[in-house]
Amino acid sequence: MTTKLYCFGESGPSYKAALAMTLARMDWTPVFVDFFAGEARSPDFRQNVNAMGECPVLVTDELTLTQSGAILQWITDQTGRFGGVGTETYEVLRWVLWDNHKLSSQLGMLRFLMNFLPPERRPGAVIEFTQGRAKAALKTLEAHLDGRDWIVGQEVTNADLSCCSYLYYPEPFGFDRADWPNIDRWLSNISALPGWRHPYDLMTRAFPGPPKEET
Amino acid sequence: MTTKLYCFGESGPSYKAALAMTLARMDWTPVFVDFFAGEARSPDFRQNVNAMGECPVLVTDELTLTQSGAILQWITDQTGRFGGVGTETYEVLRWVLWDNHKLSSQLGMLRFLMNFLPPERRPGAVIEFTQGRAKAALKTLEAHLDGRDWIVGQEVTNADLSCCSYLYYPEPFGFDRADWPNIDRWLSNISALPGWRHPYDLMTRAFPGPPKEET
Repeated sequence: MTTKLYCFGESGPSYKAALAMTLARMDWTPVFVDFFAGEARSPDFRQNVNAMGECPVLVTDELTLTQSGAILQWITDQTGRFGGVGTETYEVLRWVLWDNHKLSSQLGMLRFLMNFLPPERRPGAVIEFTQGRAKAALKTLEAHLDGRDWIVGQEVTNADLSCCSYLYYPEPFGFDRADWPNIDRWLSNISALPGWRHPYDLMTRAFPGPPKEET
Repeated sequence: MTTKLYCFGESGPSYKAALAMTLARMDWTPVFVDFFAGEARSPDFRQNVNAMGECPVLVTDELTLTQSGAILQWITDQTGRFGGVGTETYEVLRWVLWDNHKLSSQLGMLRFLMNFLPPERRPGAVIEFTQGRAKAALKTLEAHLDGRDWIVGQEVTNADLSCCSYLYYPEPFGFDRADWPNIDRWLSNISALPGWRHPYDLMTRAFPGPPKEET
């Protein structure tokens, strides 16, 4: 079975899927999407790859799938990895959903607005508001990780792989590991896993280019 | 088994779980959370009910679970309803995740900022920015529903129950069914289901009160 992932380096959601497949030693091929040139928003991409106009997109012989959390579940079903055991599966899913709703959604937008938009187009009020929401989400995660090595259970799960993604990127968006000791320790646990790689080592970078929308 | 749902009427995420349990004819009891008085953000609630400080929270004899998408999956596992068949299960999950990331997240914040905050505290720039993101998400849903009765497959699934929730609320937040004919038809399909009830008929309203954060 051929497994392709439409992605680009700056895409936090793409990194979640790319990291999971890499850690699970799956055979997969990245397909570069020139996001900042608008490729993911193009009529051709929307019609033939993903109507949602987003990355990542997983394409196998059997299915085409988007949304990183759904791709993570597919990887779990394929490999038996990262899904948790017993009722942990619900805990893993709730943290993946929380990440999509409260953490990565804010961090991704902040990183885009503060780094991939021309300075004159950066909306200060929106950035300030979003940083407040991001800080509230980071506080929830920091408190949960107190005394824990992993978000759910005793080993790495999709909860970790989803929540961690934006936190490894170098572009400034208001997150400093030194301010969050439990998150810092947890990020070190993940990057110490055999086979871990940084997003820019797994996927081709698409920036610079004319930004169209946040990843 | 006793099934309790910590919720309040204005909570779109709570409505997703309440509606699914109601349509599935499950035996459940709503537990009112005085959200606008800060109950969900209180140390007691965070410690004893939900560290994420959010509603809904499902409490059964076996588990406590938050995040509407995770509760919807639990309802599917309990009843066999709304999960889709075969690879549809991934399609259902991806739309639930998309809703949490791109649709309900924007609509919930807009409704809060435009209705539950005192007028003098409403951030105009944030509202304008968020309305742009909400409109983009509604365009994606409107296009997908062209020629479809349901988001995934041939019957109602968690994809529909997740995406529809905020769209039944009366408070103005920039959505008019008349502007979105496919969404309008789809919302009528859902509300025509046997046992369907409006959120304010399923859960006790918590507003007015001093707002603390969007639902």
